[in-house]
Amino acid sequence: MKNVKMSVAYDGTNYQGFQTQPSGNTIQDQLEAGIRMLTGEEIRINGSGRTDAGVHARAQVFNFHTESRIPIDRWAIALNARLPDDIVIQYAEEVPEDFHARFSAKRKTYRYAIDTNKFPNVFTRQYRFHHHAPLDVAAMREGLAALVGEHDFTSFASPQSTQPSHVRTIYDASIVQNQDGLDIFVTGNGFLYNMVRIIAGTAVWIGEGKMSASDIPGILAACDRTKAGPTAMAHGLMLWHVEYPE
Amino acid sequence: MKNVKMSVAYDGTNYQGFQTQPSGNTIQDQLEAGIRMLTGEEIRINGSGRTDAGVHARAQVFNFHTESRIPIDRWAIALNARLPDDIVIQYAEEVPEDFHARFSAKRKTYRYAIDTNKFPNVFTRQYRFHHHAPLDVAAMREGLAALVGEHDFTSFASPQSTQPSHVRTIYDASIVQNQDGLDIFVTGNGFLYNMVRIIAGTAVWIGEGKMSASDIPGILAACDRTKAGPTAMAHGLMLWHVEYPE
Repeated sequence: MKNVKMSVAYDGTNYQGFQTQPSGNTIQDQLEAGIRMLTGEEIRINGSGRTDAGVHARAQVFNFHTESRIPIDRWAIALNARLPDDIVIQYAEEVPEDFHARFSAKRKTYRYAIDTNKFPNVFTRQYRFHHHAPLDVAAMREGLAALVGEHDFTSFASPQSTQPSHVRTIYDASIVQNQDGLDIFVTGNGFLYNMVRIIAGTAVWIGEGKMSASDIPGILAACDRTKAGPTAMAHGLMLWHVEYPE
Repeated sequence: MKNVKMSVAYDGTNYQGFQTQPSGNTIQDQLEAGIRMLTGEEIRINGSGRTDAGVHARAQVFNFHTESRIPIDRWAIALNARLPDDIVIQYAEEVPEDFHARFSAKRKTYRYAIDTNKFPNVFTRQYRFHHHAPLDVAAMREGLAALVGEHDFTSFASPQSTQPSHVRTIYDASIVQNQDGLDIFVTGNGFLYNMVRIIAGTAVWIGEGKMSASDIPGILAACDRTKAGPTAMAHGLMLWHVEYPE
């Protein structure tokens, strides 16, 4: 029995998110169907976490246990041949038996991408939220910096969150500017339902002057979703990197 | 009567090319339908040239004459509101009565993009031809350089070309490497049917060692399509820039 870890990139546009749903049409369904075609095994994979409908991943990580004798260096090419072209395995490696893509994860980084061109860049329209109005990037950076640290993020979580604790640690929240606009990168030890999208929506409100960076401590302290900004649209979000202990 | 010039970007994936076809579903059809919705006028636009089914444009140029009193600085936003999201007008300007997007064009630049990653980058899969095998970029550059100048490009044109002359001038043909692979840029005074795709296919064959850069003069001299390399797939091609006299 092998424990196989894989990294997968996907365009989430046409899927109902990563994790299997009663309504079907998820990335996980596609991956498990591909593995079934390849090995005949009915396997449940463990993702590092969910991504919402329409959210993308540059490097989602998952693992599964298999009896298959397929050599580890053939897995990626064999599985890619059985996946639709909007889901691409990047690598496969054998990991110790106790590795679990979700429980072993140390940090995750998400990117929220904004296209500030007057009209959208047609070639990145499915991956960047188009927002032409001027944004005060310095104020946005200040607001994001105020989120760094260990906090109760109830104000930045969907009221539908069922997590027993809303305390999470953000290690970094920063902005990189590029020719199409700006990328918000947020790294933390874990994220609540809609948390990065609410952080992005709040950052945009700060950039527009509808909120101030100095409001952030009060928003956190309130533990009230209605105090933060809106939930930014799903298509601008991408799971960027999942980090595991060496 | 105004003569309006516009620049348009499009994702050609879901269209039968730029120019109106009996089979329908072209970029031109969408643009003319949008103008009709906006002004009520049945207008034929002049494109700078055709692009094949599946080919993209970063900056295609077209013009048309209109009686509409829409201010010139409102045209782009008004027309974009009436176009599907894979076609985006970038700007509109009023030009002299004798400007014609095709006849006035001086030079055109196309990009042919190749993804040399082991597995395709899922986010650019519709815009780059995936080719993982090693390519000798120095040899490709040498082969492209041998195309620069005024030549009869019959060997690099579809046998279906109906042009009276196959003599064209290439001003530049070069390669820019980037993190996803390489971009071939070709600038000329005009291009024959399939010409850039045949140049790209030939460059790939040179990169693979199936042909040599020193074969190019003989291929040109033969005036025989069968002597050049294959026609590269449409989705890697993008109309990059159309240049007009100042």
